[in-house]
Amino acid sequence: MPRWQANAPERLVLAALDLFAEHGYENTTVIEIAERAGVTKSTFFRHFRDKREVLFSQETMSTVLVDAIAAAPADAAPLEIVASAIEAAGSEFLTPTRRALGARRHAVIAANPELQEREALKRLALTADMVEALEQRGIDPMTARVAAELGSLAFTIAYDRWADPTRDAASSNLVLEAISELQAASSAALTGRGASFSNTA
Amino acid sequence: MPRWQANAPERLVLAALDLFAEHGYENTTVIEIAERAGVTKSTFFRHFRDKREVLFSQETMSTVLVDAIAAAPADAAPLEIVASAIEAAGSEFLTPTRRALGARRHAVIAANPELQEREALKRLALTADMVEALEQRGIDPMTARVAAELGSLAFTIAYDRWADPTRDAASSNLVLEAISELQAASSAALTGRGASFSNTA
Repeated sequence: MPRWQANAPERLVLAALDLFAEHGYENTTVIEIAERAGVTKSTFFRHFRDKREVLFSQETMSTVLVDAIAAAPADAAPLEIVASAIEAAGSEFLTPTRRALGARRHAVIAANPELQEREALKRLALTADMVEALEQRGIDPMTARVAAELGSLAFTIAYDRWADPTRDAASSNLVLEAISELQAASSAALTGRGASFSNTA
Repeated sequence: MPRWQANAPERLVLAALDLFAEHGYENTTVIEIAERAGVTKSTFFRHFRDKREVLFSQETMSTVLVDAIAAAPADAAPLEIVASAIEAAGSEFLTPTRRALGARRHAVIAANPELQEREALKRLALTADMVEALEQRGIDPMTARVAAELGSLAFTIAYDRWADPTRDAASSNLVLEAISELQAASSAALTGRGASFSNTA
């Protein structure tokens, strides 16, 4: 596989995911990851700051979200703007070819509380980036926060479904589905309609 | 102040906040906090696991939220249930007498990225506790998540205003105000009404 061999970052990610799954995240060293990927330690550090960053190097996600928010039509409602942004992120990141990798990354993170915290904080940072991009369009701060939080929740739901290997999921619909479920849930939360109280204690 | 002297946890919190403000959070040790409070190191560790916990020992907040969610009327809408919970938390924790302390705690956290992360994660944990309590009432998971996220956002906004020493704030209204602003913002986010697009780039 000569094309593959040339791609050090992807090989490092795959090697890291293998080792995390085999020995656990805590018990894997950068040297082992580099060895498994067939590269030197300095090649590792040219691409990633540490082993955690192998799982969380996604600054580009923020760029995709922020650019899509800026590019949305002027008359779009705040949640429509956010929906277009997370759709853009979905078609960039939640692709069928990335899905096997996504599922393995998801499993590693689910097994480690520290990594779960890191993932949660990454999502908060992306939400804050969306709030800022919405405010730049002149949307008032409170509305921007609500729209960004709902968008972030929709993306998280879509991501979790996408990364779940037991689901038969088509990526492009996952984000749209999550948004429309969330819109219905928002109405239900505000008005009580759609909520079932059958289990009320 | 003999009554005050007896209260080791409060004295430790006050001593820690003083030292964090004077020397910075990073440069303050547990021994210095204990000395300033006039207690031994082992008294410190009887009350707090480490210096960070002086700022974050609030498991009781979760209990107040969860109990209030369970106690809300059966016919209340999910967001009303959450509103009653954060009102209960507000009247317990965002009191006028605690406010000076709250403002100092807020300032210490704002000055330290690691503490900001800890604060954000604490809020996520409280949100998760609310989701679980709502689901226990038979509310569907997606609606529970939306209601809990909105409630968490409202409480955060109320807390930030309460802890802002430049504001002239009466605690009991802060939570109600934040909830009603957030309800308006939710409608604006969903429909676009209330959003200003005057600055659209």
